Amino acid sequence: MDEAALRARLEALSLFGRPAGGTFGSGVSRVAYSDADVAGRKYVMDLMRTAGLQPWIDAAGNIFGRRAGPDASAPPIVFGSHIDSVPSGGNFDGDLGSLAALGVIEALDRAGHTTRHPLEMAVWSAEEGVAFGRGLAGSRIVAGDYAPADLTATWNGMTRADAIRRIGGTPDRIETAIRSKGAHHCYLELHIEQGGTLEARRAPVGVVQGIVSIQRYRAVITGVANHAGTTPMADRHDALVAASRLTLAVREAVTARPGRQVGTVGHLVVEPNAPNVIPGTVQLIIELRDLSPDVLTSLADEIRTRAAEIGRMSGTTIELTSLGGNPPALASAEVQQAIERAASARSLESMRLPSGAGHDAQMMAQLGPMGMIFVPSVGGISHSPRELTTWEDCANGANVLLSAVLEADKS
Amino acid sequence: MDEAALRARLEALSLFGRPAGGTFGSGVSRVAYSDADVAGRKYVMDLMRTAGLQPWIDAAGNIFGRRAGPDASAPPIVFGSHIDSVPSGGNFDGDLGSLAALGVIEALDRAGHTTRHPLEMAVWSAEEGVAFGRGLAGSRIVAGDYAPADLTATWNGMTRADAIRRIGGTPDRIETAIRSKGAHHCYLELHIEQGGTLEARRAPVGVVQGIVSIQRYRAVITGVANHAGTTPMADRHDALVAASRLTLAVREAVTARPGRQVGTVGHLVVEPNAPNVIPGTVQLIIELRDLSPDVLTSLADEIRTRAAEIGRMSGTTIELTSLGGNPPALASAEVQQAIERAASARSLESMRLPSGAGHDAQMMAQLGPMGMIFVPSVGGISHSPRELTTWEDCANGANVLLSAVLEADKS
Repeated sequence: MDEAALRARLEALSLFGRPAGGTFGSGVSRVAYSDADVAGRKYVMDLMRTAGLQPWIDAAGNIFGRRAGPDASAPPIVFGSHIDSVPSGGNFDGDLGSLAALGVIEALDRAGHTTRHPLEMAVWSAEEGVAFGRGLAGSRIVAGDYAPADLTATWNGMTRADAIRRIGGTPDRIETAIRSKGAHHCYLELHIEQGGTLEARRAPVGVVQGIVSIQRYRAVITGVANHAGTTPMADRHDALVAASRLTLAVREAVTARPGRQVGTVGHLVVEPNAPNVIPGTVQLIIELRDLSPDVLTSLADEIRTRAAEIGRMSGTTIELTSLGGNPPALASAEVQQAIERAASARSLESMRLPSGAGHDAQMMAQLGPMGMIFVPSVGGISHSPRELTTWEDCANGANVLLSAVLEADKS
Repeated sequence: MDEAALRARLEALSLFGRPAGGTFGSGVSRVAYSDADVAGRKYVMDLMRTAGLQPWIDAAGNIFGRRAGPDASAPPIVFGSHIDSVPSGGNFDGDLGSLAALGVIEALDRAGHTTRHPLEMAVWSAEEGVAFGRGLAGSRIVAGDYAPADLTATWNGMTRADAIRRIGGTPDRIETAIRSKGAHHCYLELHIEQGGTLEARRAPVGVVQGIVSIQRYRAVITGVANHAGTTPMADRHDALVAASRLTLAVREAVTARPGRQVGTVGHLVVEPNAPNVIPGTVQLIIELRDLSPDVLTSLADEIRTRAAEIGRMSGTTIELTSLGGNPPALASAEVQQAIERAASARSLESMRLPSGAGHDAQMMAQLGPMGMIFVPSVGGISHSPRELTTWEDCANGANVLLSAVLEADKS
């Protein structure tokens, strides 16, 4: 792995969407379908061409490059990530996994190593889901998880079909982007952790067990809005007092059991929200995440029970409605072991952990075995210009990706 | 007291600002300085003229009518209320006390009763403080509690000076509205309770001990906004979890001691307020009300101590800033006793209670002895079309006002 090239390319890619007057480390705004995204994609495709790949763009706007193996009919090992960002995002999220994928192919070329399976690097489009709301990532289209109506959604004055055309996709033949189950040998993705677990445990490599299931619930708490001066404390039906108890109950339920599950009340709105009026209504959203759907169901049951008690005690009604979510996307045991062997071979300590964030790998898990490699995020910070992964950790991750591809090629 | 006339006039006054298609009981929108306010004031002044009073409007827009006594130099007994409303307010708030004041003068005229002190009924302007924000009530100007800059404030495209002109005031000579301490014998005001205490205790008459002090504090809770999926529970600095504990701490502090003090968190705003982001900042406003400034100081101290603990425990910082408030306005012991005797004389049970809401009487307390009579609000509801006081309670209140004027006239 040419570690110097990896660093130089991360620095060069950061120019596309860099804030005015910034430097590397000032973060990037390379929202999918923007001018910066188009320019960044061209930069990466030019690198791929220089490396002897013949990059192509599928109907969904995903970029692929293939390195043939001895058997053209063997299913490829696919690996990559994305280069779009959130607004004011960091310089490592997605970029590292995309450029490391290219580095893997170049390293094998330099070594003259032939893999049994063809290799395919991927730069997925629109991973961050900024454009068009929660987004229709290119990887989601590849997994067939979209509806025709998605293409007519509008954002920033363009339809999603126009947006996909803007990055070289062909929305009129969108169905050609869909891949079938078993069409690839396995999928691998290197990504920054975006949390602080690896740093806290001083582990340079994370072996992702899977991408957690996310379940969201809306709570509507209805009390009685009333005069904050004339209503005695005993006569109140204060929706914010009930919401406060519910917010703490969520934290208590989540932390009462061992495990890595998380639960958050991130959105809360009070009505009428005046200092001199007892809150009549509060709406909030509870988000629960874990690898195990059973754990999430049990947590939701417990929160529902606590909500009913809180309603009774506070003279309010609390209505909990599921907003749905997504199932977990588990990494395959074989791919996890391949990554562990890869880390071991390079004398790098690794630890297993779930991914609390979504990734393209989540979609690819629907089509075949999947595994992810995490490298530490300094301070656990991501989606921020302050996002940082040391060059040493970047290089370690790229090398483990290279070795994991070779490990996966053995099976 | 002509109870039938009182009822008929309350119904007639409710036409000014009545919602389209509504009836009495549909509430009223008679915001100060509006067309409905101007028309309602004309209706009341016409009634005053018919009753033989010669109503005049002072520089601040307050309406007065005087019934002479034997000694023109004796200080008058002043009594009245207001007729402006909040948007979608009720049909009793202010209207009852204003029209009952006229009824008192008419009843004494019919009885041929001469009081030692001149009597002066007042219909104060702009009590509700809807126009021009927290407002500059006419009674506040009479107490001298205003600044010249207040007259140039704008609202709905007019300056406050223009607004005062619109209701017949003379803002260019605003200082002539100021009254001096001791210029009146005492001030009395009949008002609906706007809370549920009298109804709960089945007391038809409330003897107001005073208008509570209000103190407000802004709390700024600063945590760390972070990814709700990748940040383990133990590593969070969740500003909303801390805000929830603070909200409950306010309620606990206020309810832990005996007394009628109240405390409310009515306003709370979360940032960034996204379901998948741990709240980084919460701003909320704590409002405390009680007759005793010492109780409020002690509560604030306790809340400050609890906030510091909560900050330490939750890894957040909580900054509490006083937003100021107003001192209590105590009713005079003599006037309270006069009202109690008045209720007794009419075989009506009375109870003492604080007023948690502000009233014109609060301003008049700065100039001389003050007392208020409360009558029950059904369900404790006010500032709502559902505001209701039974006709029997309205009549009781008006009769107690009449008797209290006579009791006060004895001293």
